[in-house]
Amino acid sequence: MGSFELNDRIRSDSQMASVLGLCQLRLMNDRRWPWLLLIPQRPEIEEVYQLTPLDQTLLTFEMCETARALKQVTGCEKVNIGALGNHVRQLHMHVIARNPGDPAWPGPAWGVGNAEPYDTNDAADLIAAILDAL
Amino acid sequence: MGSFELNDRIRSDSQMASVLGLCQLRLMNDRRWPWLLLIPQRPEIEEVYQLTPLDQTLLTFEMCETARALKQVTGCEKVNIGALGNHVRQLHMHVIARNPGDPAWPGPAWGVGNAEPYDTNDAADLIAAILDAL
Repeated sequence: MGSFELNDRIRSDSQMASVLGLCQLRLMNDRRWPWLLLIPQRPEIEEVYQLTPLDQTLLTFEMCETARALKQVTGCEKVNIGALGNHVRQLHMHVIARNPGDPAWPGPAWGVGNAEPYDTNDAADLIAAILDAL
Repeated sequence: MGSFELNDRIRSDSQMASVLGLCQLRLMNDRRWPWLLLIPQRPEIEEVYQLTPLDQTLLTFEMCETARALKQVTGCEKVNIGALGNHVRQLHMHVIARNPGDPAWPGPAWGVGNAEPYDTNDAADLIAAILDAL
């Protein structure tokens, strides 16, 4: 089995925020929604059930802490969590802050319109606030 | 804190398949996709991080086993997992079998078109196959 390498599309669509115990925590470069990604740093994993039981538990812990931090920082109405992988097979968990009136509410945010990149400082500020809340 | 009561919309959109350790396992009544729901039988929970750590782990275990069974039974290309809750706040985890050419591929299945109900026997057969694989 090879070593973990981040998928190119995930790399180009997001920026690194931190490395947690299991996952890379990344911010999607789309200011329409505060949108985080958790990518388990394990090779050749496409479905959550392919992780070892310990890694499943770590992913759940990191997902819950990330969702709590996102809720705390943004004050959003609802956190949306998902692992789809229809476009990019490498396992990645979305953690998205959702609010009534956002561009897709109450539908899902995936695949809606085009990403609107952050100003550099805004992305850095959001990442700093999330890491502070973690 | 009150006792657990299943949300009315979830009840009307799906049928009971089984009660697992933590969750009700239900089949969405939409034959366009084999689509399961896991609803933790805990009152007043809207976000995964509101569950106790033990319940988080149970949900993860049941979600992984359900996803594995769904993949085995359907032979689908990809399992989609999500907890959104924009319409219905009661925490419920979707586990959906996805394939190229399905009515929403590669986009998300949530909110696409109108559900197409199963023939009664087909739903019972699918539930039996899922329970057999669990």
